[in-house]
Amino acid sequence: MPLDIKRLDARRFQPDKMQKLNLFETSRFFCDVYCLEPGQAQKPHRHAGSDKLYAVLEGQVRVTIGEDTGTLGAGDVVLCPSDSDHGLLNESAERAAVLVFMAPHP
Amino acid sequence: MPLDIKRLDARRFQPDKMQKLNLFETSRFFCDVYCLEPGQAQKPHRHAGSDKLYAVLEGQVRVTIGEDTGTLGAGDVVLCPSDSDHGLLNESAERAAVLVFMAPHP
Repeated sequence: MPLDIKRLDARRFQPDKMQKLNLFETSRFFCDVYCLEPGQAQKPHRHAGSDKLYAVLEGQVRVTIGEDTGTLGAGDVVLCPSDSDHGLLNESAERAAVLVFMAPHP
Repeated sequence: MPLDIKRLDARRFQPDKMQKLNLFETSRFFCDVYCLEPGQAQKPHRHAGSDKLYAVLEGQVRVTIGEDTGTLGAGDVVLCPSDSDHGLLNESAERAAVLVFMAPHP
């Protein structure tokens, strides 16, 4: 059987809200690509008992984790620890895409 | 506090064996960049109860998962399910780098 290959450059943008494009999902984790038009966001929220990574693939996003915030560009990776508020905002004029890993699967 | 930012283009190559460069590690998962000189490999092995992703960042690698095998290039992502033998081989003439995510942390 050939391998089931997904792509880091998978994208799906919609004008109404940020899109979550799933690459892989198991009982133990998920891996998505979040696609954000300018102005779109993932509002700050938290997960009890699950850690998450944001890895910026394209564009720039403002990331908030707990009390900390910063603008990340392509290639930047940050950890959103369990029980910390975290969110994304594309405040740039270009599209952005962020690879997201979370475990365990909520 | 500024965010603790790691980089997808982090690399460390050594002539004797494949290098594992850790980006983030929690009690729930780890995220590494594996750096392979031509000819270097991660020999097939398995994990009981942990799923892994390989996402090729640079170069080409031969990936084997169970009975399946294929050559992956930059941007390709595959899932190595728990209890399946999986491994990497850089059989190209160029360096390769692979983002690796595994959960739960073994």
